[in-house]
Amino acid sequence: MCKITNSAISVNTYSSRLLEQCVNELARLPGIGRKTALRLALHMLKQEDIAVENLTGAISDMKSKINYCKICNNLSDGEICQICDNPKRDPGLVCVVSDIRDILAIEKTAQFGGVYHVLNGIISPIDGIGPGDLNIDPLVKRVANGGIREIIFALSSTIEGDTTSYYIFKKISQHNVSVSTIARGISVGDELEYADEVTLGRSIMNRMPYQSGLK
Amino acid sequence: MCKITNSAISVNTYSSRLLEQCVNELARLPGIGRKTALRLALHMLKQEDIAVENLTGAISDMKSKINYCKICNNLSDGEICQICDNPKRDPGLVCVVSDIRDILAIEKTAQFGGVYHVLNGIISPIDGIGPGDLNIDPLVKRVANGGIREIIFALSSTIEGDTTSYYIFKKISQHNVSVSTIARGISVGDELEYADEVTLGRSIMNRMPYQSGLK
Repeated sequence: MCKITNSAISVNTYSSRLLEQCVNELARLPGIGRKTALRLALHMLKQEDIAVENLTGAISDMKSKINYCKICNNLSDGEICQICDNPKRDPGLVCVVSDIRDILAIEKTAQFGGVYHVLNGIISPIDGIGPGDLNIDPLVKRVANGGIREIIFALSSTIEGDTTSYYIFKKISQHNVSVSTIARGISVGDELEYADEVTLGRSIMNRMPYQSGLK
Repeated sequence: MCKITNSAISVNTYSSRLLEQCVNELARLPGIGRKTALRLALHMLKQEDIAVENLTGAISDMKSKINYCKICNNLSDGEICQICDNPKRDPGLVCVVSDIRDILAIEKTAQFGGVYHVLNGIISPIDGIGPGDLNIDPLVKRVANGGIREIIFALSSTIEGDTTSYYIFKKISQHNVSVSTIARGISVGDELEYADEVTLGRSIMNRMPYQSGLK
């Protein structure tokens, strides 16, 4: 019915170089493949100009203006982050985390009234990350300067996390500060039979005095 | 061991307003929730400045500079898109699609040597989309101007798609142009027993003379 040329037609997948560049850049983001990138780019083309300007402006602003808190290394708009700057938070109680995301997770629980210290990673020789690459010295200085009553380690329970905790513990043990780590045990709501044996074993070793949650 | 204040701590999930704005804007994109948006924002913070500038620049450039082809309404860097502008493509064979994404899908097959016409949607009274909202009149003009030998409808096989095809067919039937629609049938590699009955029924009705694919 129609003449279909089956020969090599020069296939340039995107008809526009501008679109192609945008898709390439979006596809560099983690978890975004080329199909999703194309969907996002075509979505942006359908949006009002102002909506896309808001997006690019928010990204540029964040990238160029954001600071890291001089005290705890958390993300911050100013020199000191909102948590360190909050007079209601207890500066004598410091929770040590490896990543900013951990702060967000702990803040969501609304159970912690102290302040934080972000290490920016954990000691991991296999990845070439030593104590010098992490934000550990400023923590030791914070402790040496006094005013800190307790340090809570909230690092992952891996060999790397335990190594990091131990390294910091040795560094600060000369100072008069109590050191604790977050409780490990069976998740609230979990069935015992599905818990892994290490967690279950630890939760029996570290058993707690019974307190009724009911009144 | 430590005094945990369980009272109302003002929980501002993100410690930075700049980060929060960026997450809010990213989370407006389709298929991107707040967790993914946060992951993307933190990823961007870890990148080199130039990488993030490339991303925002590519988005802004695309949004501000991209054109729609004056002939077929495809995305284009210039006034005429690369496909309409390609002397190797047959301007007498026009494939009518509803969306730019359909062009990308057809181009990937490398089986079509003609040109396109993008309708920007299909007639859908339930969504309030009538023929006047679509790019149909320019297609009718293209046909009236002559030089077009065949129109191929590549619209979805729904009531809306069939309505749109029929509407355009009536509009251009006075001109000397043959009209076809892409073949519907069992997908290559599909098992018959899993095909839906409408597709299977149509594929029997529209059966084709046997041609061996083997030589």
